[in-house]
This record gives sequence, structure tokens and C-alpha cells, in this order.
Amino acid sequence: MQVWKDYQEKNKDRFLNELLELLKIPSISAKSEHKDDMQRCAEAVKLRLLEAGADKVEIFPTDGHPVVYAEKIIDATKPTVLVYGHYDVQPAEPLELWHSGPFEPVIKDGKIFARGSCDDKGQVYMHVKALETLVKTNTLTSNIKFCIEGEEEVGSPNLGKFVSSHKELLKADCILISDSSMLSLDTPSIDIGVRGLSYIEVEVTGPNRDLHSGVYGGAVANPITILSKMIASCHDENNHITIPGFYDDVLVATDEERKLMAAAPFDAKEYAADLGVKELLGEKDFTTNERTGIRPTLELNGIWGGYQGEGAKTVLPSKATAKISARLVPNQSSEKITKMLLDYFKSIAPPYVTVSAFEHHGGEPYITPIDSKAYQAAAKAIESTFNKKPIPVRGGGSIPICALFEKELGVKIVFMGFGLDSDNLHSPNEKFNVENFYKGIETIPYFHKYFAEIK
Amino acid sequence: MQVWKDYQEKNKDRFLNELLELLKIPSISAKSEHKDDMQRCAEAVKLRLLEAGADKVEIFPTDGHPVVYAEKIIDATKPTVLVYGHYDVQPAEPLELWHSGPFEPVIKDGKIFARGSCDDKGQVYMHVKALETLVKTNTLTSNIKFCIEGEEEVGSPNLGKFVSSHKELLKADCILISDSSMLSLDTPSIDIGVRGLSYIEVEVTGPNRDLHSGVYGGAVANPITILSKMIASCHDENNHITIPGFYDDVLVATDEERKLMAAAPFDAKEYAADLGVKELLGEKDFTTNERTGIRPTLELNGIWGGYQGEGAKTVLPSKATAKISARLVPNQSSEKITKMLLDYFKSIAPPYVTVSAFEHHGGEPYITPIDSKAYQAAAKAIESTFNKKPIPVRGGGSIPICALFEKELGVKIVFMGFGLDSDNLHSPNEKFNVENFYKGIETIPYFHKYFAEIK
Repeated sequence: MQVWKDYQEKNKDRFLNELLELLKIPSISAKSEHKDDMQRCAEAVKLRLLEAGADKVEIFPTDGHPVVYAEKIIDATKPTVLVYGHYDVQPAEPLELWHSGPFEPVIKDGKIFARGSCDDKGQVYMHVKALETLVKTNTLTSNIKFCIEGEEEVGSPNLGKFVSSHKELLKADCILISDSSMLSLDTPSIDIGVRGLSYIEVEVTGPNRDLHSGVYGGAVANPITILSKMIASCHDENNHITIPGFYDDVLVATDEERKLMAAAPFDAKEYAADLGVKELLGEKDFTTNERTGIRPTLELNGIWGGYQGEGAKTVLPSKATAKISARLVPNQSSEKITKMLLDYFKSIAPPYVTVSAFEHHGGEPYITPIDSKAYQAAAKAIESTFNKKPIPVRGGGSIPICALFEKELGVKIVFMGFGLDSDNLHSPNEKFNVENFYKGIETIPYFHKYFAEIK
Repeated sequence: MQVWKDYQEKNKDRFLNELLELLKIPSISAKSEHKDDMQRCAEAVKLRLLEAGADKVEIFPTDGHPVVYAEKIIDATKPTVLVYGHYDVQPAEPLELWHSGPFEPVIKDGKIFARGSCDDKGQVYMHVKALETLVKTNTLTSNIKFCIEGEEEVGSPNLGKFVSSHKELLKADCILISDSSMLSLDTPSIDIGVRGLSYIEVEVTGPNRDLHSGVYGGAVANPITILSKMIASCHDENNHITIPGFYDDVLVATDEERKLMAAAPFDAKEYAADLGVKELLGEKDFTTNERTGIRPTLELNGIWGGYQGEGAKTVLPSKATAKISARLVPNQSSEKITKMLLDYFKSIAPPYVTVSAFEHHGGEPYITPIDSKAYQAAAKAIESTFNKKPIPVRGGGSIPICALFEKELGVKIVFMGFGLDSDNLHSPNEKFNVENFYKGIETIPYFHKYFAEIK
């Protein structure tokens, strides 16, 4: 659509400058001292949506940070797309590792460096500028709604209540989310799934106090040794998870999906070199992309016990503790797997120790069917601007609100991420390529056009 | 000796108060921030030895913390006893488990609670007050030397050099050490052996940085899981240590010694109840006393890796580390076992991780013959004040410098420990019974008397 291209070309510098202004607001949801910044950021998002052409924009207070809602309704009988995103960002620490201020955005080597540049202000702003493009060129043929929340980085504690109490307002035919990545501009891809999560903590207690390892060594169970044996028991020699029933509900990926995944460019040598490991390790009979995409995993996130300081201390510790989480795939249930993990660790506890285990938090896996209208529209949009069919890939991470949206609104979600895995999300020097930002603004209008057209 | 008893009775409160003052100095040798406290503690020990009547007291600097030397020479032709002890203490962590400050000594229920109360300041101070008793009552009939070091809790890295370069100064007929325990005041015992020690640290490195456990989980080895498997491999189902060659040099205890050990009063139920465990666990086919006395062991002293804070963080950590130590029995060699442990962990390292392992410190096992003059004097001294013959037992702990002393000075060592196994050595709420402290001061002068008399 030449008219979109012309409009965007003429306004590209302004688009970028507006984003930089938004990135200057330290909207860190986790820190109460930024409460005013959160409100200020919600108001800035509201203003920009109004300027872009939304008919109605409203800030909804919640028990936490507010939700910004906006809509541009052309014709209530036409399809409606609900865009979800978030204006809050992760804390910026460790500050000393940033090359420039996290809230003083700079452009260097074609990249926007700032906290939130990719996750998620930059990607939300692509949608605002796509709306503007469609409205100002009089080419919008369907309806668009926006739900931009301020608590994604703290687990969306108040979004469930907001969604379930505003079902009519949020009613849509699909939900479009740009809060993920693609393989590269050369190899566009669409995340068709996110994994679920079960996260537990296991504490093994042996003796009621730290003991002298000489006086008592050999006479009582060592909780570190016992915990290590328990952890070691979770994977077999093929790196299959041994916990009884763990794989029972796994929806096995089709041969066709595995074939498509295998077609994605992947260089195991380069991948290993980037991580600094000599060899990769994962579940037997699956490729690396399958291991991080279509297979559930069990990872140790932390462990501690006994003396961890400088030098040597001959202690036989009283306790050892581990943080353990599983990534889940369709149709595993987070609640069921969490219970399974808790039960497993309690059941294998030998009589010489006491094991306590509790849940941290979880989330359900989610999958977008590639034959859904939303996926088809996204794939066609990307093909229009990249001149390449996108590869469907399964993301390894988790977006716990997906299952909530589908349950409450009864529609499918599609992920169109324009970031890169290397964008340092949640880390110092977060970035977003200027080119990816523009490519997103260019592609999104096609999504709305095709979604309205596809029958 | 009524004159000793009278003197001690008259001064008992002062003896105790002086010890409390010494316990206030946080002489933690493992932590560099306590360097000044170490010097301060050495000077306090020096002052107390002078006050007690030593002729000559000197602080010898070393490459680490200083050694305090003292002597009271009556007649160079008379026998000389070298008292060895240490003024340094273990780190006090975990601080939150102490009922009172580790360096704010309090007396409660007849026990002195403080770090170092038993190990070893309290026991060293018994010798200082025994010297005072002998000097002030003009009853010393032999010579006493003191070698009180400041690095016992970190493996005495500089004592070897000090001893070998001061052989003439330290020359003695036996070495007397109170850095161990007895079964109880009702069942006095003498440790006839200490175990040796090998102490290593093993670090497993997987990816070169902490990774997102969703994006990378399942694709690379998790260093915590690998380390756990390595630890789990060290013991078989009978709790035998599986490291090849580990038991090769173990001198099997005679049936007679095992029979003597079995005769010592021991209540497994009470022992387990004191430790708060439902069941004991140890090497198959050996009793608890044998497991902690005549058998070598391998214990995990500490482990850490990944996220250890509040809540959940979905990290796949770059590193996991463990501190691991073995207790050795005659005729195992610390150097040989340390090498064996280091080699073992390197040899079982799978190719997906990098394992580095290094030695902390070690020490050789030691045995005191019960027919030695020193043992006979100790047994007779205990009988004089306890009205019971002491039982010879093997201690589970290690005093690494024993082998060094015997080699360099060519004399036997005897252990007269007045602590209890339940004194929480190296643990929170370390204690020393006031009664045991006084009993030690009462008994030690008899040792000097008998050692000088026995032909």
C-alpha cells in the first residue's frame, strides 16, 4: 500500500522522536517510588492514542497501576482486533552495566538503547503509529481496540479482575500481541506458542542445627547430599524427566510442525559458541529448537546450603534448599504439574530428613493454531513487507495472561513480535533496532487489512 | 592437691570473667576483614600468659596470622610439655540462628555461649589458668611451653614453616592438646586419634552467563543439575564412598579396638533425638561410633548456585559450586586423597560443562598409642579428678597439625579434651559448660605433675 508507505516515510523521524520521549518516563511497576511515573506514563500513552486517532481513550484505575483502554470503531459489524501490550518496564539494575542512562534513550549503530525500548514500549508504539497510519490515510476497514496495562512485569496481578469485569468493552475477534521476538529481519518468524510454568521451592532438613562435619560426619544424612540425589533422580540418562506422569498430558507436536521447525535456520555450533559451551545437552531424540519449544523441561533455578563464604568451613549443614521450575507445553496444566512436583519431592524424601516444598507461581502454556484466521493474517502481513513467509516457532518463555484472555474473551491470540532474542530484555543495555521498529509499523496495518478480509 | 583446689576456688570468678573478655574478640581467621582482631587477640593471649607467670612470651608474625609462644622453664633438665592450641575461631554465620551475639558471651544454664567458648579459646584458657595455679602456688616441677596459633580454623597454612624453623624453641617431651571433647563428665574419655582431612571446592560452569530458563531451558546443561549428579555419584546405596581407591589405605581397626568402642555408653535413640532426626544414616556394617571414629567419610559442607533470594526468578545459572571434605583415618594420606578427589570430579565432568576444582587444606590422621607416657599421664590425671578411669576413644574431627608436630619435633601428642560433642562447635550457639572449664583447670596441673614423675 503506497499510501501507507508515503505517510510513514514522511513522518518517520517524528515517530522515532515520540517513542524516545515515552522511553524517558521511568515506569518501573515493581517499585512503589515510581507510582507517579506510572500514572504519568499511562497519561502519555492515552494522549498518543488520542492523537493517533482513537475515538475513545480511557484510563482505568486498578488496585495496582492503571490500564489504558482505547478504541477506533469503524463499523460494529466489522471484525475487531484487540491489541494487548504494556507500558511498564523492568527495574534497570544493575545500573553500572549500562553504557548510557536507562531512561536517557540514545540511538547508536541503528539501535535505540533504553529500558523498555523493546519490552514493551517500543513494540506498543508500533501499534499506535500503525493506527495513526490507517486513520490518517483513511484506510482503516475494521475495528481496533487497545488494552495497554501497567503491571506485566510484576505478573499482571490486577489484569484478571479488569478483563473479567470488562468483557463487553474488550470484546474482539482476536487478540494481537507484540511482546516477543522474531528470528531476524532476514528470517521473519511468528511465535505460535509460549510455554507454561510451574515453580516450586524444596527444602531438605537433616539435623536440627549445623554440625561439625568431623564429630558427626558419617553418622547422619547430609541434607546437601540428599537434595543432590533427589535432583539427580529427576532426569534419566537420556534427559527425559523421570517424575511419574510428567509427560502424560503433553500434546505431541505433529510431524508437519516438526518439519516446519526443522526448516528454520539454526546453527548449533554458533548457538553453543554464543553460550560458551563445548556441547549442547537436552532431551534425546529432539532438536534444540524442539527442546526449547515443543518439549517441557525441568530446570534448577537456584540452590543453597551450608557454608558458602571464603575459605573452608567444616560444617555438616542442617538444611539445603533448591528453586526448581518446569516449562510446560500444551496440554499440560500448571496446577497439575505443580502438585506433581511437590508430591514427587515429598514422596522420595528418605526417612533421615524432612522435606518441605511449596509453590511460587505458575502459568498455563498457550498455542496459536496455524490454521487460525489470526495466524493466517499475521503470516500474510509479514510476507507482504518482508517478501518471505514467516516461520512458525514455539517460544520457550511464558506469558501467563494468554490463557486468561482466551478463557475470558473466548478468542485466539496471535503473537507478532518484532524484537530480537539479543535485545537484552530485562538486562542492562536493552535495545530495539530502529529498523525493526519501522518494520513493525509497516507490517501491522497489513495485519488489520488481512484479518478483516480473510473469511 | 589441696593447695591447687584452694587457689582455684578463690579465683574461679576471675578465671571465668577473663575468659569472657577473650571471647569478645571476633578472631575469625577465615575473613580478611578481621585481620586487626586477630592481632588484638594474639596480644590479649600474650598478656594473659605473662600475667599467669610465663617467663617469656612472644608474638611471632607469619605470612598469615601470628603465633603466640610462651614458656615457663623451671629446670632445663626436667621434662617439658608443649601445650598447643589456637586463638582463632570459625565464622559465626548463620547469625540469625544465634540466641545471643556470637561475640557477646553470656552464661545461661551453666553454659558459656559464644563463638570459641569451647573451640578453642575456652580450652586454651584452661591451660593458662593451670599454669597460673602451678606458678602462683609454687608447685610447678617441670617445664611448660605454649604454642597458640591463629590459623587452625583455616588449616594452619603457616604453622609448618614456623615449627620447622623454631625446632629448638619448641623442643619438648610431649605435646598436650585440648581441642577435642570427652564423652561426658560422668564418662570421661581421652581421644586417642583424630581423623585426617581433605577439603576441596568444585565449580561447575555451564553457559557463560545466566540465561533465561524459558528461552534456553532444555537446550544446555544446567550446572546445578550436573553438580547434583556428580555429588550423588559419590556414595552408593550402602553409603560406601564410590571414589575409586578411596579405601585402599585404610588401616582396619582391630577387633579388640572395636570391642572397646562398643563398650562405651551410647544411646542411638538419644543421639538421634538430640540431632532432631528420625533415623541415623551411615556406612553399612558399622556402628555410629565407628562411622565417626574409625571410618573415613565424605561430606558436603556447602553448595550454592543461581537465584537464592526471595520469590522466583527464572534463571538457568552459569555456575554452581560445592565445598566438599573427606575425613581420613590411619593410614590414609591427605595429599593422596585430595588428589584423588580433585581427579575424580574432573574425570566425571561431562563435556557440556567445565569443572574446576581446587584444594582448600588438609591434614593427616593421627593416633596416640595408649602405652605412651603422655597417655598414661593424661589417664592418671583424669582419674585423680574424676575418680574414674577415662575410656580411650577415637575422635571424628581433625587436628591437621598433629602429624606435622610429630614429624618435626619427634614427640608424641596426647589429647585431653574437656568439651562435649554437643557443644555446637562450628555451629550457632557454640557453648562450653562452666563446670567443664573448671574441671579442665583442675585436671591439667595433675598432667604436668604425673608426666614429670612417670619414668
